[in-house]
Amino acid sequence: MNTYPSILLSDAVDQFASLPGVGRKTALRLVLHLLRQPDKDVEAFAGALTRLKQEVKYCRVCHTISDQEVCPICQSHSRDKHTICVVENVQDVMSIENTGQYNGLYHVLGGIISPMDGVGPSDIEIDSLVNRIEKDDIREVILALPTTMEGDTTNFYIYRRLQNLTKDDIASSPDRLIASLPHPLKISQIARGVAIGNELEYTDEITLGRSIVNRIEFKL
Amino acid sequence: MNTYPSILLSDAVDQFASLPGVGRKTALRLVLHLLRQPDKDVEAFAGALTRLKQEVKYCRVCHTISDQEVCPICQSHSRDKHTICVVENVQDVMSIENTGQYNGLYHVLGGIISPMDGVGPSDIEIDSLVNRIEKDDIREVILALPTTMEGDTTNFYIYRRLQNLTKDDIASSPDRLIASLPHPLKISQIARGVAIGNELEYTDEITLGRSIVNRIEFKL
Repeated sequence: MNTYPSILLSDAVDQFASLPGVGRKTALRLVLHLLRQPDKDVEAFAGALTRLKQEVKYCRVCHTISDQEVCPICQSHSRDKHTICVVENVQDVMSIENTGQYNGLYHVLGGIISPMDGVGPSDIEIDSLVNRIEKDDIREVILALPTTMEGDTTNFYIYRRLQNLTKDDIASSPDRLIASLPHPLKISQIARGVAIGNELEYTDEITLGRSIVNRIEFKL
Repeated sequence: MNTYPSILLSDAVDQFASLPGVGRKTALRLVLHLLRQPDKDVEAFAGALTRLKQEVKYCRVCHTISDQEVCPICQSHSRDKHTICVVENVQDVMSIENTGQYNGLYHVLGGIISPMDGVGPSDIEIDSLVNRIEKDDIREVILALPTTMEGDTTNFYIYRRLQNLTKDDIASSPDRLIASLPHPLKISQIARGVAIGNELEYTDEITLGRSIVNRIEFKL
């Protein structure tokens, strides 16, 4: 697929093919689909992208994508203001919201610590998380990061930073945080184990092993 | 995935999700990818689409997508001007070009006859095909349409129209074509059979059955 009959076509295909998971054949199919649509639909497509990029805001409290300075979740009076769920990105906020099981606030890191990709603690929203915990009356932080090595590293880093907040003794601390919280802070992480509906036979060994080590008491 | 934190985001996701084969989860992933790109890249993306839709031309001879009034293939002096390969769409032109096995001209129908979808012979470029064959010195028409019922219907319809061109007796003709060609016109269709590299075991019965009926003589 290297001979396009038109440069305009080839440009549009290049753009779609630059998207993750979209190959040149798919890109061509998408572009030809758009070409068959009415002019106004294609304008609407292009317009939605331009507007999104130019006008989108990030909530200045939790850093999720929002149309306002502060997102509806952070503004809501019906949410539990004492709990923050720390996630990697906005998709994770949406996924957790869709479960209907969480009623607290969020904090979007915008990435996770990944030395291989050159992402360090200062590249993501960890300082602002610590500030929120110091400033607001936060009682629990739930770490809901990916169950990967990078996720674990980030969990550990945040845990250490937050632990220091609750200690008076900061001599051994690598961070220069002096404030100590007026109340205990609970730090938890989402449960990891065999996914609901999965057969043990098809669960990978690491997950299954961890689910045995971290077993919980059976209650009736 | 129904609670988007931003209307701008949800609009952009709607646009991507309107593309064939793109679900809402994929659409969100693509939109968030674009959101992480520099402004100018997103502008280039939107611009390429708008420009394509506004400026693209269709070759007035073969109806393929082109930047010019007449496409490079139709203009080329090194191509066989006596052969036309009839295809459904521009992807097919590109696919056949990529084989490097064909050096004739094309004719893009822009669809195939499909009564179920309300597409009749007059909705696609069949009249212009007949005109080209009458007007230009065409010796062979290769039908390279999909091997589906709609493709077969279109093949049959074109075959009947072209057959009438070569006959003096048009009493029985459903078409009002009077011209008769000064030379014989060969009408062929692409070979159908077991794809190269495929095991017979995994070939569907219709294809395998046809490939036996339409067997060709083994030559050394």
